[in-house]
Amino acid sequence: MPKALITTVPFADKNSQPLDSLKQAGIDFVINPLGRKLKEDELAEMIAGFDVLIAGTEPITQKVLANADRLKLISRVGIGLDSVDLLAAEKKGIKVSYTPDAPAPAVAELTVGMMLTLLRHVHIANSQMHQGLWHRYFGRRISEITIGIIGVGRIGQGVIERLNSFAPSKILFNDIEEKSIFSDMPWLQEATKEEIYEQADLISLHVPLTVQTKNMIRLENLRLMKSDAVIINTSRGGIINEHDLAMILSEGHLASAAIDVFEQEPYDGELINIERCLLTSHMGSMSIDCRTRMEIEATEEAIRFLTGRSLEGLVPKEEYDVQREGL
Amino acid sequence: MPKALITTVPFADKNSQPLDSLKQAGIDFVINPLGRKLKEDELAEMIAGFDVLIAGTEPITQKVLANADRLKLISRVGIGLDSVDLLAAEKKGIKVSYTPDAPAPAVAELTVGMMLTLLRHVHIANSQMHQGLWHRYFGRRISEITIGIIGVGRIGQGVIERLNSFAPSKILFNDIEEKSIFSDMPWLQEATKEEIYEQADLISLHVPLTVQTKNMIRLENLRLMKSDAVIINTSRGGIINEHDLAMILSEGHLASAAIDVFEQEPYDGELINIERCLLTSHMGSMSIDCRTRMEIEATEEAIRFLTGRSLEGLVPKEEYDVQREGL
Repeated sequence: MPKALITTVPFADKNSQPLDSLKQAGIDFVINPLGRKLKEDELAEMIAGFDVLIAGTEPITQKVLANADRLKLISRVGIGLDSVDLLAAEKKGIKVSYTPDAPAPAVAELTVGMMLTLLRHVHIANSQMHQGLWHRYFGRRISEITIGIIGVGRIGQGVIERLNSFAPSKILFNDIEEKSIFSDMPWLQEATKEEIYEQADLISLHVPLTVQTKNMIRLENLRLMKSDAVIINTSRGGIINEHDLAMILSEGHLASAAIDVFEQEPYDGELINIERCLLTSHMGSMSIDCRTRMEIEATEEAIRFLTGRSLEGLVPKEEYDVQREGL
Repeated sequence: MPKALITTVPFADKNSQPLDSLKQAGIDFVINPLGRKLKEDELAEMIAGFDVLIAGTEPITQKVLANADRLKLISRVGIGLDSVDLLAAEKKGIKVSYTPDAPAPAVAELTVGMMLTLLRHVHIANSQMHQGLWHRYFGRRISEITIGIIGVGRIGQGVIERLNSFAPSKILFNDIEEKSIFSDMPWLQEATKEEIYEQADLISLHVPLTVQTKNMIRLENLRLMKSDAVIINTSRGGIINEHDLAMILSEGHLASAAIDVFEQEPYDGELINIERCLLTSHMGSMSIDCRTRMEIEATEEAIRFLTGRSLEGLVPKEEYDVQREGL
């Protein structure tokens, strides 16, 4: 009987369909018994004997794969591939699939909510009200500011589209996949990253984590930003250097920040002591509908593989090239 | 020299144009020396000797007006008239003007931000992350839920329009001024308040405070709502009974609430102890652009009055009727 290891948690929490499908297909499965993101060593210990890994963002490294004696498919629940050593998997003949479209609407919507929260200092007022303090903060509206979007793939595009009904006046973007999608949005302008750092009142990151984007935003970049700018990271931890962000916020630079993703998750680092840093626990994809779709797509891919049907979510060659060039 | 009392605070904090205009027009002015919303007695003590009141939401009652020996115009910075005894003003021959359009975009945008925050439990995750706790909350997207909007004037309409780019599937509305504005939005359906209480996953209030709407949402209405519904009040304090809301949240009913307006402001009542109640300090209109526009419009109206020009922002007869019928 084929065996699947499900490491991403929570899994099938709001909808049992993924587990029902595995059972119907006669596939044995084990769900991550630790109930949190696994560390490299933990996964390395756990992986032996499984044919398929239905994976979250835990590190699937050479060391892990060395113990993967039966593994033939990694089916990622989500879009990011920074956690998967694609080249090591390729070398062992392990296929990798993912669900790149499913999380985008949830991440985009969380991001727009964070934009509106930061621009009006809602998180700060809320924190202070709960301490019995009353201060009426001034804020800004989307139409009054320059927005900078770094990374315009599925999620960045979703953010830009959702901003339409707020009558944006200027959105600078950098690093776009397909320019043609925005032909009817005259408020969009291509810009360099440096122009975005210097000119934007709000900066939001929607790039994958690669060797190029790791620590993309460090102290010197943060210092280029306007003193009352706000910055949002719902992409991957480590793209903004966390220590540098904590330092710059402590100095009083930047109005605020919203961070959903961290180098080490669960996170309890120095940003937790900074009130104007809005923190969430990697919840970008955590809308019930998107999460369910991600889980179903990743599970169906595993079942297709184990029942000898052709795969639909294979990671394209370009993703392997990104890692090959990065190394 | 004519004298103006400015009670709303902050005033001209981000843009000095209102004060510059008053000076140019040769109008003497005093800004609320207490720096917070005045109580009835405080305003009653202060009002004598002023020709014009540039007013916030402090109570402008019969008692206050009894001391208003020279007052000829109340120029409200904002839209709500619940704080002004229009009939007592009318009896004394005091005109009342307001700025009904200026705050709407800011309130609508804050409200949509609160919707996205509540639906994804961002405020709860943020509070817990700052305590070192990591829990990944499931949430919902706009397109997955039934939204209920009670009160569709300038602000309710602004909310509905901003939701367009989130692909809403069903918006129930009640208490609308002009139905024709929504002819091309098939997801909109008129409903009774009770239908909204029972069916909506998210309820947002955009009605004025009147005798009819005071305590409109009490314990029995809150109990009708879905156990995982969320409710938002950015209109006026007292429309949701605060004590009943605190009680129902403490019982575990409703997923969360966002409250920007309170019966007594500054607020430090029992809701401050409830983590899943998002609290802000009457910040609906507090975007720099809208606040500036409100202040300029109210000041220009005062100057028009004191320089013998015709008024542009007089409160319409219907608002007097509302108070007449209410009493």
